[in-house]
Amino acid sequence: MENRHIVSAFDRDLEAIQAYIMKMGGLVEASITDAATALAARDEELAEAVRTRDSAIDELEERINEEAARVIALRAPTAIDLRVILSVMKMSSNLERIGDLSKNMAKRTGVLVQLKTVNGTTSSLKRMAREVERMLKDALDAYIQRDVALAEDVLERDADIDQMYNAMFRNFLTHMMEDPRNITACMHLHFIAKNIERMGDHVTAIAEQVIFLESGETPSDRQKKDLTSTEAALPKGALD
Amino acid sequence: MENRHIVSAFDRDLEAIQAYIMKMGGLVEASITDAATALAARDEELAEAVRTRDSAIDELEERINEEAARVIALRAPTAIDLRVILSVMKMSSNLERIGDLSKNMAKRTGVLVQLKTVNGTTSSLKRMAREVERMLKDALDAYIQRDVALAEDVLERDADIDQMYNAMFRNFLTHMMEDPRNITACMHLHFIAKNIERMGDHVTAIAEQVIFLESGETPSDRQKKDLTSTEAALPKGALD
Repeated sequence: MENRHIVSAFDRDLEAIQAYIMKMGGLVEASITDAATALAARDEELAEAVRTRDSAIDELEERINEEAARVIALRAPTAIDLRVILSVMKMSSNLERIGDLSKNMAKRTGVLVQLKTVNGTTSSLKRMAREVERMLKDALDAYIQRDVALAEDVLERDADIDQMYNAMFRNFLTHMMEDPRNITACMHLHFIAKNIERMGDHVTAIAEQVIFLESGETPSDRQKKDLTSTEAALPKGALD
Repeated sequence: MENRHIVSAFDRDLEAIQAYIMKMGGLVEASITDAATALAARDEELAEAVRTRDSAIDELEERINEEAARVIALRAPTAIDLRVILSVMKMSSNLERIGDLSKNMAKRTGVLVQLKTVNGTTSSLKRMAREVERMLKDALDAYIQRDVALAEDVLERDADIDQMYNAMFRNFLTHMMEDPRNITACMHLHFIAKNIERMGDHVTAIAEQVIFLESGETPSDRQKKDLTSTEAALPKGALD
């Protein structure tokens, strides 16, 4: 790119940190997919792989925070460079949380394999997880390419995730009312659905960092959006 | 205190930020209590007050982050001072999350008042919330007084919260199986219980920052503790 400014020591430091972010992103993407696949296939071994991978993700977050603190202390960055560093730290924290939520899903798989299956639920969860994983991939691409349009696109797609969650919530209620033997499994499945929805919120937060970096505007209120909104927005009758 | 070093410009800046943290802590403590009270008393007005208060909490977090970034840029703090600033930013993020979870509880109150009550459940939730609020108070005191023993005490008490959550999870299952008309309410109540348990995890993270600041050790793995552990640890039979 032509309008690139001269590469400074700070830029080199930042590039190293961004490389860690991308590595972390790759691991997290894999965890989302694997956790959903393990659940749908009742594959305990794959679930265990997700649980193990989480420590590598946690280590990367620590590494990124240490590097970021080192760069701040060493380079005393300008306000703009500082903004970049702080947003990288926020992104690594979002990635770590998504990793945790995937591990959480993998842990529940261990419990769910011992329970009766509930028709069609795990395949819907898998579709929802696949969609979140694609959003994460795009949010990270948007970050690297500073592509605000792509980041905006990710923000919009979060509404689909909320809608999928909403539909699943109703579906779980129906299964539980039809047959009380579904209750325990549905409570776990419901938590998994909620966790995938929360992953979507963290992906949204990453996309908002991209917009923030390019526009300088603080992340919109979308980030603070209420996590229960999908259920609260259900028609009253649906919850009675 | 005698071994206090000379008050620098950095110390003054830090004191101002800490004052914001304590103010934020006060608001969050109030939100926890009020949200639980509103739920138990089915008091929509009090729930609304919690929802409104959340924007004041969010504003304080933004203010703290801006101030912290300003101090880093202006004072180019040493490694140790930088550690303090970064931990203050982490604490404000934990407080913001607890505030969000309280708001979330208040939102569900709006849904729950329209449903049939489930015996004894909201009073147990209130007890659990009260305990988390006390832990938060102690964690903030531990921070101001750099009291590691008190911070350790807070960490230990988180196990009680996990135990309370565990007991409530079983209780909800029983109510749902006994009477399917309890299912919808119990799903919301279960989320509230889980949210209070997550508040406990954020309080724990604050207590760990105190230990980190005094000892220089990175927060122990306790912070990364798996959120589903309480259920996963249930005897297999309890979930069947």
